[in-house]
Amino acid sequence: MIKYPNGQKAINKKQQNISSNKDALSLSCANRGMRLEDEINETNTYYKEKGLCLIYKRPTPIRVLQLDYTNGVRIKDAIYEKKSTTDYNGVYQGRYIDIEAKSTLNKTSFPLANISEHQLLHLERVIKHGGIALFIIEFTRFERAFILTAQYVLNFIKNNERKSITLLDIEENGYEIKRGYAPRLDYLPILQQICHKY
Amino acid sequence: MIKYPNGQKAINKKQQNISSNKDALSLSCANRGMRLEDEINETNTYYKEKGLCLIYKRPTPIRVLQLDYTNGVRIKDAIYEKKSTTDYNGVYQGRYIDIEAKSTLNKTSFPLANISEHQLLHLERVIKHGGIALFIIEFTRFERAFILTAQYVLNFIKNNERKSITLLDIEENGYEIKRGYAPRLDYLPILQQICHKY
Repeated sequence: MIKYPNGQKAINKKQQNISSNKDALSLSCANRGMRLEDEINETNTYYKEKGLCLIYKRPTPIRVLQLDYTNGVRIKDAIYEKKSTTDYNGVYQGRYIDIEAKSTLNKTSFPLANISEHQLLHLERVIKHGGIALFIIEFTRFERAFILTAQYVLNFIKNNERKSITLLDIEENGYEIKRGYAPRLDYLPILQQICHKY
Repeated sequence: MIKYPNGQKAINKKQQNISSNKDALSLSCANRGMRLEDEINETNTYYKEKGLCLIYKRPTPIRVLQLDYTNGVRIKDAIYEKKSTTDYNGVYQGRYIDIEAKSTLNKTSFPLANISEHQLLHLERVIKHGGIALFIIEFTRFERAFILTAQYVLNFIKNNERKSITLLDIEENGYEIKRGYAPRLDYLPILQQICHKY
């Protein structure tokens, strides 16, 4: 399966950060971002099979421009639409869970430009309706991933001029996710903590 | 925007000419179901804008077979994948809500063959995790729509040999949805009732 938009656009942006090696570039951008997604997907499958929680990846919405009916139905022209919501949602102990996953190659901070206005609005709505809204933020170079509540990010944007959240801030205010074999990215203990809190 | 499998194209075609058998046939399948979907989408937009609840349509998953990068990213060949989950999910008062919408041209009963094994398994999981799992079932010819809990449908399948649920059963065990102008299909009062019950 080919995934978009998680990698492509980011590649261009990241040319600032990375010298020139083409292979290194493609590895460091699209694939790594995807790797986070793959890890989360694997983790969610693990949780689903163990009956621990039920979180699904939202399919990327597309706009179909041309269909071919000659042999069943086949999409012959379509474009990816901009996501107006988030990557994942689902249920844990009756609660509605909503998660956006982002990774950065940055070493010291997470650039807020990675998050769209639409996504912030969506997460704000989720919170308003009593759902649990989270970010999974990965610092790809260090292979460290954190959960930050969307509320924290929304407050940060409201109260700061800064265009990024430092790793230090994230270490202090987020929850680091334990990486392992199965599940790959064991975020459930953190989700439990957060659900008890809110 | 061309929608599939609930396609706009088909609706127009139908509305123009319902007389011939062929049109009547196509009406009975994709198109009417579509109209129900449009009504639910409109209702969900209304609820979202009024801040009443937050329920989204899940995009239909596709499998991309060919991408074209010559001018941005464009899907040049793809097929629709079989849904393994349901049409809608979201949040109401912190609770996770999951809804599958079905319509039938049948006058006396709703054929259970309309529901896939995967969807039943998914809804069973949602219930197990404390979510609210519902069906919206429309009898298109009468323009009557009902909510049935997924639990009721699962119990029915478990305890019956019958391959369909009669309209009478649905009237007795479901909740009829009031149709109106705005919202089109006002299912929220029923959702409230069900949330208080479970």
